[in-house]
Amino acid sequence: MNGIKRLVLDVLKLHDPTIIVIADAIGQLDGVDGVNISLYEVDQQTENVKITVEGDRLNFDLIKRTIEDFGAAIHSIDEVVSGKRIVTEEETLLERT
Amino acid sequence: MNGIKRLVLDVLKLHDPTIIVIADAIGQLDGVDGVNISLYEVDQQTENVKITVEGDRLNFDLIKRTIEDFGAAIHSIDEVVSGKRIVTEEETLLERT
Amino acid sequence: MNGIKRLVLDVLKLHDPTIIVIADAIGQLDGVDGVNISLYEVDQQTENVKITVEGDRLNFDLIKRTIEDFGAAIHSIDEVVSGKRIVTEEETLLERT
Amino acid sequence: MNGIKRLVLDVLKLHDPTIIVIADAIGQLDGVDGVNISLYEVDQQTENVKITVEGDRLNFDLIKRTIEDFGAAIHSIDEVVSGKRIVTEEETLLERT
Amino acid sequence: MNGIKRLVLDVLKLHDPTIIVIADAIGQLDGVDGVNISLYEVDQQTENVKITVEGDRLNFDLIKRTIEDFGAAIHSIDEVVSGKRIVTEEETLLERT
Amino acid sequence: MNGIKRLVLDVLKLHDPTIIVIADAIGQLDGVDGVNISLYEVDQQTENVKITVEGDRLNFDLIKRTIEDFGAAIHSIDEVVSGKRIVTEEETLLERT
Amino acid sequence: MNGIKRLVLDVLKLHDPTIIVIADAIGQLDGVDGVNISLYEVDQQTENVKITVEGDRLNFDLIKRTIEDFGAAIHSIDEVVSGKRIVTEEETLLERT
Repeated sequence: MNGIKRLVLDVLKLHDPTIIVIADAIGQLDGVDGVNISLYEVDQQTENVKITVEGDRLNFDLIKRTIEDFGAAIHSIDEVVSGKRIVTEEETLLERT
Repeated sequence: MNGIKRLVLDVLKLHDPTIIVIADAIGQLDGVDGVNISLYEVDQQTENVKITVEGDRLNFDLIKRTIEDFGAAIHSIDEVVSGKRIVTEEETLLERT
Repeated sequence: MNGIKRLVLDVLKLHDPTIIVIADAIGQLDGVDGVNISLYEVDQQTENVKITVEGDRLNFDLIKRTIEDFGAAIHSIDEVVSGKRIVTEEETLLERT
Repeated sequence: MNGIKRLVLDVLKLHDPTIIVIADAIGQLDGVDGVNISLYEVDQQTENVKITVEGDRLNFDLIKRTIEDFGAAIHSIDEVVSGKRIVTEEETLLERT
Repeated sequence: MNGIKRLVLDVLKLHDPTIIVIADAIGQLDGVDGVNISLYEVDQQTENVKITVEGDRLNFDLIKRTIEDFGAAIHSIDEVVSGKRIVTEEETLLERT
Repeated sequence: MNGIKRLVLDVLKLHDPTIIVIADAIGQLDGVDGVNISLYEVDQQTENVKITVEGDRLNFDLIKRTIEDFGAAIHSIDEVVSGKRIVTEEETLLERT
Repeated sequence: MNGIKRLVLDVLKLHDPTIIVIADAIGQLDGVDGVNISLYEVDQQTENVKITVEGDRLNFDLIKRTIEDFGAAIHSIDEVVSGKRIVTEEETLLERT
């Protein structure tokens, strides 16, 4: 099935709710096979997390609304995979040299 | 089956009981397939450990209570995976550059 | 089937449309199995992305036109794979020493 | 089968007996599938080794007694895996950044 | 089938034609299963690329002529694999120490 | 079958005989599935090599005698695996931090 | 089948003949499954290459003669594998610390 297969989002959130609550909500959305939320910076009021969502025909608007409903904001879209199968980004010779 | 599939927790504990006792207890909880407890810092009174739990429909409250019953405290929730299958967090091009 | 199997492109784009819109469009082109768009630099007006396309008999002109229709420009073609199967570029002894 | 599946121990031992003799003894204990003993520091009287034991329902007390019977001492328990299957500890985004 | 199975060539080329045109031509040669052309340096008039060709009974003279017909020159032959199957070059202990 | 499954030895040898002759001899011993001899330092009279032996019920005394019969000496036993299957030594969180 | 399964040789050769000619010759020797020749240093008159040969019951004398017949010289034998199956050399804990 064609469509968005993977999304990697950089998200700023409040401490509350925890990433468990947000992961649980995204994990139940239509088209989502699984979601990984990883913490990478903690401040007094907020924390920065990286959200990786995989599935078939991912609905970005629905995922965005779900994230924002928890008072969190998408800071940037860092990676998108679309098509019939997942294509991974690999380090090229140019990047290595 | 939907639900929380993996949890990575940063935990502060007393030297006693050992991580063997705590791993054994978490490993027997409902929904838990396996648990890994790895030591990363040892102080005079306490030690810091990283707890990785995998399974189906993990019950965070139950895991938290089990950890706290041993006099240990969850310092932060570093990673959560939810959905039908485990999605891993991969280093993006943006992080590499 | 013979033909271009993988293309890695360095592309400069405006913030709008997002990489989701562009990935979705490329992912639906003839011959495309999948596409990965990864962000690596963000400026005030523009952003630099790396586009990896895989498939059979990829049509570069069609992919190029699709990218340019979104107001983006191909800065360089960093890697191409052609033939009956994908051949990966591996670090040689000479590069390591 | 539930229980302790892997143990990583930091052990201080005398030069005699060799790690071959100790590995042979641990490898024959009930529940042990295999044991790896790796040397990492050699001093005049002693040597430091890392012992990794894998199996089903590992009996820590039995393993500990076996190690101590050879005049060696467990310096710390660095990793424990428990449950129905082995869960590996993976580097998190937080550790990488 | 015996013969040359992989060739890694360091090639200097003009900007025109693109690596897509050259990869397409090599990918259609007799005995070639696939070819990877990766860019690693861009100058005003020229660019340096690494060409990896895999197949059965690769005909080096034919590949060389094809490359030269595009106004490009083989700067060095960095790796060759010959025989019944591909043998990879692995980092030895001596190189690591 | 229980017993020693892998041995890693640090060995000092004369230039003559070559590691080919020694590997050939060890490779034919009872219980040995395979042996790898890797060079890591060359001096005027001697060379240091790392010998990795894998098999079932490896007989250390026999291997030691074979090595010494070639005028070589075991400098240290760096790793031993024993039991029903090979257990590998993995880098722990504590070593990484 | 018992015997030498892999050989890694450090070889000094003249620019002529190319590594393609030498790889082709070694790849056709009795017992050879495949050979990899990788360049690692180029001087005015000579070049240094690393030759990895894999097969069953490799005949070192025959391989050596073939190399020398091309005016090349074996500088050192860096790795040998012998026995019923290939055993790889792995980095030990001692080397890592």
